[in-house]
Amino acid sequence: MSPRDPRLAVETKRDGRALSEGEIEAFVEGYVRGQVPEEVAAAFLMAAYIRGLDADETAALTKAMVASGKTLRLERVERPKVDKHSTGGVSDGVTLVFAPMAAAMGLAVAKLSGRGLGHTGGTLDKLESIPGLRTDLSAEEIERQVVEIGCAVAAQSAALVPADAKLYALRDATATVASVALIAASVMCKKLAVQSDLILLDVKCGSGAFMKTRRAAVALARACVGIARGSGRRARAAVTDMSQPLGEAVGNSLEVAEAVAVLRGEKPGRLRDLAVVLAGEALSHASGAAMGEARAAAARAIDSGEALERFRRMVEAQRGDARVVDDPQGVLPRAPVERVIEADRGGTIVAVDAEAIGGQAVALGAGRLRKEDPVDPSAGLILRAKIGDRLEMGMPIGEAHARTEDAAERAARGVLQALQLSEEPVRAPQLVLGWFDSED
Amino acid sequence: MSPRDPRLAVETKRDGRALSEGEIEAFVEGYVRGQVPEEVAAAFLMAAYIRGLDADETAALTKAMVASGKTLRLERVERPKVDKHSTGGVSDGVTLVFAPMAAAMGLAVAKLSGRGLGHTGGTLDKLESIPGLRTDLSAEEIERQVVEIGCAVAAQSAALVPADAKLYALRDATATVASVALIAASVMCKKLAVQSDLILLDVKCGSGAFMKTRRAAVALARACVGIARGSGRRARAAVTDMSQPLGEAVGNSLEVAEAVAVLRGEKPGRLRDLAVVLAGEALSHASGAAMGEARAAAARAIDSGEALERFRRMVEAQRGDARVVDDPQGVLPRAPVERVIEADRGGTIVAVDAEAIGGQAVALGAGRLRKEDPVDPSAGLILRAKIGDRLEMGMPIGEAHARTEDAAERAARGVLQALQLSEEPVRAPQLVLGWFDSED
Repeated sequence: MSPRDPRLAVETKRDGRALSEGEIEAFVEGYVRGQVPEEVAAAFLMAAYIRGLDADETAALTKAMVASGKTLRLERVERPKVDKHSTGGVSDGVTLVFAPMAAAMGLAVAKLSGRGLGHTGGTLDKLESIPGLRTDLSAEEIERQVVEIGCAVAAQSAALVPADAKLYALRDATATVASVALIAASVMCKKLAVQSDLILLDVKCGSGAFMKTRRAAVALARACVGIARGSGRRARAAVTDMSQPLGEAVGNSLEVAEAVAVLRGEKPGRLRDLAVVLAGEALSHASGAAMGEARAAAARAIDSGEALERFRRMVEAQRGDARVVDDPQGVLPRAPVERVIEADRGGTIVAVDAEAIGGQAVALGAGRLRKEDPVDPSAGLILRAKIGDRLEMGMPIGEAHARTEDAAERAARGVLQALQLSEEPVRAPQLVLGWFDSED
Repeated sequence: MSPRDPRLAVETKRDGRALSEGEIEAFVEGYVRGQVPEEVAAAFLMAAYIRGLDADETAALTKAMVASGKTLRLERVERPKVDKHSTGGVSDGVTLVFAPMAAAMGLAVAKLSGRGLGHTGGTLDKLESIPGLRTDLSAEEIERQVVEIGCAVAAQSAALVPADAKLYALRDATATVASVALIAASVMCKKLAVQSDLILLDVKCGSGAFMKTRRAAVALARACVGIARGSGRRARAAVTDMSQPLGEAVGNSLEVAEAVAVLRGEKPGRLRDLAVVLAGEALSHASGAAMGEARAAAARAIDSGEALERFRRMVEAQRGDARVVDDPQGVLPRAPVERVIEADRGGTIVAVDAEAIGGQAVALGAGRLRKEDPVDPSAGLILRAKIGDRLEMGMPIGEAHARTEDAAERAARGVLQALQLSEEPVRAPQLVLGWFDSED
């Protein structure tokens, strides 16, 4: 730590003044080394939460967090490297589809993912519902797999950005999670710690996202690309709709099965659409292809079976049961109770409380409220009805996959309560609400 | 602790909403019991610092702090009980004069004091420069002495308001000391923990006070009497001038000697004047006497020798060398070097940096920068010149009492630098700037 009293940095932020890069660096470094006590960092976080951090401060915080650990350089990977991150939503299985699509198109995706927390699912939990599949890959294993196959999805290593885990735990304890600058720094430090040519961000917006409003999501997207800009990295952020679950499945096995169906070309819909948009974006950036062409190529990666093949090889390389691509139902764990959910009213769906639906899946065992909780890979929900769909009383609209009849019944009721019906017709919400670029 | 998650209280304050009495009580109780972690309390303090606490919240915080420990009930004391507190200044020996004056007038003063910190002196340090004098009195000893003599000045016991010491240490660590609400709560919890009929507050204002501006001092005075009001206690707060040292002496032995001189009736000036104002206020409240009469009675308590006699008995009861009232110079420790300070310019004193003068006394060893530091009872300064006084080059204006010639020389230079001279005449600042009452 610098000999400077860390309270001076707290004081500066407390009074709403901006900190220099050096001040932030010294503070974060001191915190990670244990020289800045937890309570001093807690006071800093609250001051930063209330007073805000400007673009330069946010970039400096992110850089200091990256500097706290190792980085994944991927020097042997020759393909164009694209990283992808979602800020978290319900039924957001895009990574499972995107990574093999990008690999099929000659790009490289070395994706470090997290676990689910709260109402949102985590890619690692989903993948690990495939029997045998490992996500604790070493840096060497990740690099080798990306060279050979083009994609790997692995757990965030504790050696990368240790400041992030430490700060996140403190934010969680001190009610300072929901700060745009702190969220952006936490998202971007993990992206900056992995070498890539493009960082693609999917900033979710709506009832199932952390950012409930377009305004908040846009602020986060801007903050994230601003950090990339401040670090000399290229990032593009899409603000995308999370006013309802993206796909139909909510729960680990169920989402893997849905992703496999999309990769098999059997499932049109918003999950496929968004994967195509993002993979098209990645290809366009890497090859200079026009967006229309790039999206067509992305769709072909699915329809040709190439993306499915990459997924199979990725699962195999990570020691999972690769038969999952041929017979997901046979390979993935299944819940003892599968109960059909039927509409209890008629009308058009005009709004969905996607967070409540995520919460029902968590209640079934699909997610965790605390980091230490185990998840049940088989539990979850299917909700086929989307905003704009017309329901008739008694129409089957989904399923609850549960350990008991009671739990399935409660979840079904919860899902129905999360749907807002009306007699007015309503249009399906736009999928991509806007793009933000570090070069703008 | 209540089963309620303490983060909810942090969140409420973070967002600028008001907390209920029950929420604050549960938070403070949980903190004192170690169930609310330091980092959570740190985030709360920062949120309270930036967002503020309203009058009800401040009163609730203070009550919760009082509830964290024992109280001093003084049930055997039949005289009207008056407590007195200064927010801290330079050359503020009022307690040493006030307590025996009040006792001489038939009132009871059970005064729990603190030690000096930073540029301000502490009454305990001053009293302990009298050889043999004890301040670690038990509750029983304090009560007995107040019954017999009418006054006792003792150390704040750790059994009273333990929350205050714990919170103060955390505020110090987290740059959240300088909050009006938190300062007021810290002042008042110690007053509420001691039974009294009147709490007299001396809120210092100016260059030698924590509150540098009248606006800040008035805010603190209002917050303090507001807390008394919320607790059904009577308090009166005077905002008084600290734009220069109150008396002439700065340092422990030197201030005791000055207080003895005032009590002997040998020393007119602002220290005597303020003690008379406060003691008059106390008597008027207790007896209903008109203010003019009450102040005249207070002056008589000095001029008759009654107050000096009470001081002698108090020193004796606390095992100090009571000859200090007859021969302070002979009894009190003296510094090896006593250097006269001479004006290095001519002009009228228009402003004094009293904090700098306090700092020079600390540098000589009279005070402490950290709680653990020892103090040198003999070290300090005398500054006889006041705002409005006309200086001629070479005129003796004070003394430095030091361990070495070098230290005395540095202190003398520091004192001269702290004086701002001008050719314009200027009036002496008003001593009492305003009164605030819990019944207003």
